[in-house]
Amino acid sequence: MPAYTPPLADFTFLVKDWLKIDALYQSLGLEEFDAELALEVIEQGGKFATDVVAPLNREGDEQGCKLSNGQVVTPDGFAAAYQSYVDNGWNAMLGDIEYGGQGLPYSMAVPVHEMLNSANLSWRLTTMLTESAVLAVTKHASDELKAQYLEKLVSGQWTGTMNLTEPQAGSDLSLLSTKAEPNDDGSYKITGSKIFITAGDHDWTENIVHMVLARLPDAPAGVKGISLFLVPKFLLNDNGNPGERNALAPSALEKKMGIKASPTCVMNFDGAKGWLVGEPHCGLACMFTMMNDARFQVGLEGLGASEASFQGALTYARERLQSRAPQGVQQPDDKADAIVYQPDIARMLLTQKALTEGNRALAMLYAKYMDIAHNSSDEAHDNAEAILQFLTPICKAFMTDTGLESTSLGIQIFGGHGYIREWGMEQLMRDVRIAMLYEGTNGIQSLDLIGRKLTRDRGDMLGITRNAFAELVAGMASGEAQQHASALLDEWYQTSLQVKAFSAVDAAGGACDYLAYSGYCLLGVLWYSMADCAAQGDNPVLAAGKQKTCDFYIQRLLPRTAAHKAALLESADTLLAVEGSEFDYL
Amino acid sequence: MPAYTPPLADFTFLVKDWLKIDALYQSLGLEEFDAELALEVIEQGGKFATDVVAPLNREGDEQGCKLSNGQVVTPDGFAAAYQSYVDNGWNAMLGDIEYGGQGLPYSMAVPVHEMLNSANLSWRLTTMLTESAVLAVTKHASDELKAQYLEKLVSGQWTGTMNLTEPQAGSDLSLLSTKAEPNDDGSYKITGSKIFITAGDHDWTENIVHMVLARLPDAPAGVKGISLFLVPKFLLNDNGNPGERNALAPSALEKKMGIKASPTCVMNFDGAKGWLVGEPHCGLACMFTMMNDARFQVGLEGLGASEASFQGALTYARERLQSRAPQGVQQPDDKADAIVYQPDIARMLLTQKALTEGNRALAMLYAKYMDIAHNSSDEAHDNAEAILQFLTPICKAFMTDTGLESTSLGIQIFGGHGYIREWGMEQLMRDVRIAMLYEGTNGIQSLDLIGRKLTRDRGDMLGITRNAFAELVAGMASGEAQQHASALLDEWYQTSLQVKAFSAVDAAGGACDYLAYSGYCLLGVLWYSMADCAAQGDNPVLAAGKQKTCDFYIQRLLPRTAAHKAALLESADTLLAVEGSEFDYL
Repeated sequence: MPAYTPPLADFTFLVKDWLKIDALYQSLGLEEFDAELALEVIEQGGKFATDVVAPLNREGDEQGCKLSNGQVVTPDGFAAAYQSYVDNGWNAMLGDIEYGGQGLPYSMAVPVHEMLNSANLSWRLTTMLTESAVLAVTKHASDELKAQYLEKLVSGQWTGTMNLTEPQAGSDLSLLSTKAEPNDDGSYKITGSKIFITAGDHDWTENIVHMVLARLPDAPAGVKGISLFLVPKFLLNDNGNPGERNALAPSALEKKMGIKASPTCVMNFDGAKGWLVGEPHCGLACMFTMMNDARFQVGLEGLGASEASFQGALTYARERLQSRAPQGVQQPDDKADAIVYQPDIARMLLTQKALTEGNRALAMLYAKYMDIAHNSSDEAHDNAEAILQFLTPICKAFMTDTGLESTSLGIQIFGGHGYIREWGMEQLMRDVRIAMLYEGTNGIQSLDLIGRKLTRDRGDMLGITRNAFAELVAGMASGEAQQHASALLDEWYQTSLQVKAFSAVDAAGGACDYLAYSGYCLLGVLWYSMADCAAQGDNPVLAAGKQKTCDFYIQRLLPRTAAHKAALLESADTLLAVEGSEFDYL
Repeated sequence: MPAYTPPLADFTFLVKDWLKIDALYQSLGLEEFDAELALEVIEQGGKFATDVVAPLNREGDEQGCKLSNGQVVTPDGFAAAYQSYVDNGWNAMLGDIEYGGQGLPYSMAVPVHEMLNSANLSWRLTTMLTESAVLAVTKHASDELKAQYLEKLVSGQWTGTMNLTEPQAGSDLSLLSTKAEPNDDGSYKITGSKIFITAGDHDWTENIVHMVLARLPDAPAGVKGISLFLVPKFLLNDNGNPGERNALAPSALEKKMGIKASPTCVMNFDGAKGWLVGEPHCGLACMFTMMNDARFQVGLEGLGASEASFQGALTYARERLQSRAPQGVQQPDDKADAIVYQPDIARMLLTQKALTEGNRALAMLYAKYMDIAHNSSDEAHDNAEAILQFLTPICKAFMTDTGLESTSLGIQIFGGHGYIREWGMEQLMRDVRIAMLYEGTNGIQSLDLIGRKLTRDRGDMLGITRNAFAELVAGMASGEAQQHASALLDEWYQTSLQVKAFSAVDAAGGACDYLAYSGYCLLGVLWYSMADCAAQGDNPVLAAGKQKTCDFYIQRLLPRTAAHKAALLESADTLLAVEGSEFDYL
């Protein structure tokens, strides 16, 4: 596989020119940060992803993880790369300064996360889960637990996990049955089995901190009877270091389609000692406070894989000589032209490029509102929160759905070689396929968007989100492009208002198409905005690339909205009409 | 993975009611065949696929193939299953009666092939390649070669391979460099390296017959200098049995994304003895005579995988209890409702069902015209050939593109479990991904359709194909549905006429979208026709299923034509506008 190269020019454009990050940081009172520092962080993060993490990706897929004597062994080099990550402070980017974190803005960290995903999705997952645990502990744990655990989770000395799923409780967590019984000392005895636990065990750190959903003895049935517990692999001794082994262990490793270098564990808790985080029976609410972040992070996995696949395919298409281009001979000194000159290959490459860069703009816009939400109050804060709420399921599902499409196109551009493991293109497709499933399947994301965020919303998340995009449109220089962008945004908004009036059943039936429709519309607005902004900048190659890719997106990808809109506006009756053996009549 | 069940009711409907096979066979003078016999063959074929081949599929993926001392070892049970296949005459279904074949109509054999693909794609591939070799030898080899090889290839005592691709020559075979030098005895010395050779070696049979493309010493450059050779693994001794080992061997096995139980070999020919098949320099033409069949067979792989995935997902969706259905509680005695009642799950299942059954109808229509082409002459024969020519790239690419979508939906319906190998759902997606690549990538199929079959066609393949579908529409009973179907067919035809006038470059740019557009339009016509036909039949459950699935297809999938049409009508200028570093600007 061709080497991964951090897309620094695109980040530079997005951070400096498009997001105008200097002005943003100033308006948020973040005087210690500016675009220069942001780009320095991004460049160094890209270097780390390229030099340390990417070289482990292919071999990690071949080696996979092993469970040996109750202990997970990860592929060669993975633990050392993690140690280097921790030593260089990367794990602490977003952590609270009070607990040793660097408190960097999201708009600095998100590009680093994207690049780590491009370099090695399996490797990145463990650190992503730790970030979720940090959020849970920071927001909901007692001061005592924070004092014991937070600094080491922030630095990365210990990693974290999220233990939600059980065999009978996946999308529907109300069915979960892991028990938590009070001990005399204020702690709890956790008993149950969890599945699909990313990094449930590994050989990277001396301790692992599990965040576990379980039911107290007096818990009401359903989701309102679930509590959150912190359950360490090793109990802490009096000086705060790992001591006695807790009664929990991985009982099996899942054999998966991809992310084989990431240990996906079945975890058994046999009366393991744990501590309540947050109020009793409020575990699901605690989980939800970090859901936005985790789901957005999964969206970044789709983006990262898409970029890596695009780079691989572009390099190959420039080198692979087959046939002559229909528009005329391009390389008269060679026996054939590079396939990059074939219109259909260009179509596939531009599809990858348009989706990747469009999704990157969406991710950076999201990061901007994360920064606003974390550094403002009152209306500005509430508006940013509303936008994040609305965009989260779109980022998660749209970026991963299109990530799958992009990585499949990457294979297609390679022809038969794309199917061969050594090239790495098929690994990207296998690896990214998980992202449509975990942290809530993309179906669940769509129901969240069309239900909680649109039809059942008592505020105006839709209108506030519309305004955020309208602000981008208002800032455009070209009147004609501005009109197109404005019309597109309005078309999306009007359709969304129609959908807002749907019955719950029709909404459920149209959910996935509405999410895809929204993704393509909003990416269209972002493309108009980016092309317009780049035209004002000082990088003519980038400006030409953005304008031409925008043209491509509008002509060849935006029409997909028509298919999704027609489908989503249908009633769900047709979906519910097929009954029993009418489905299969074998 | 839930057990595979042959879709016999659908085949019964298609063969008896929809294709009206009794009348077809009579009109073609095939008095020895009728619907009863066809359904008996299909039932027995389904039994073989289910009982013998399907049970090997999951473990075959885990074991894969090994190369040991220059000899390929296939997974446990694969060779024995093949022996049983041969012993029971399945390999000889389509073979010439003169050489021990059964000369069955395609409309009997194609359902068996679909079911073998559903059961075990890796296992099926070897027999499919033998069928291609049989066609090549039958149509182009000398009587002497036929006498030596054909009977044993027809029976399956020996298998066949196709050796086309070389490292530098994939989509562009003009670049191939394998040499053929004449020996004194009329044979040739073949020297070169071939890659991606399916079943290039295995442990199933005592001999393997390689069909190899190579260049004679005086060959002109390009595709007009390629000849076809028959090169056996073991040379035949005087009594026609395998004797001396020929100078050829597999030098490596490819490590692939899927079809791991099928040995994909790098083959080295070191002066191996071979015999010319067909005229010198006409190898590519010889290959093309069997291309229709092989490409259609690859389309069947998409169909087979899609059916298997649909069955797995449907079974799971009926058993998996999560949450309550939004339209109201369905299983009050359970803690949750089966997910099959979720509108979004139903949407995914119906997408699988509508694509699978639509593609099956397309495949059976294709089989019908294969039967007509093989058993008629003059205009009827030429018309059937034109229809086959036009439909071949659509069958190959559309059935495999939608096969990938369907198998991905199958994973999605399983949630996280879909990503776990033991369920078998992810294997279907990995296995079917190859079908978009080999026998000409789907991009090459699209160029074939829009180039050779449409814009550069000097006859009227388009009009003749339109007439074939118009015949289906004319046979419909319901006036309203007939009007819809007729309008859809006309809309496709009018758009196709527009495309026919495209420049070569615009055609290349719009090729993939035109193929997808055609696939969705034609499947729409097939759905109208099937629903109408089923309503006249005596199976009310099947009739209801067909009508409701037709409604779903028209409402929720047919709108995709709008996206493809808008894209394909754009000029290719946008695709060719992006140059050099505008692509990447890193």
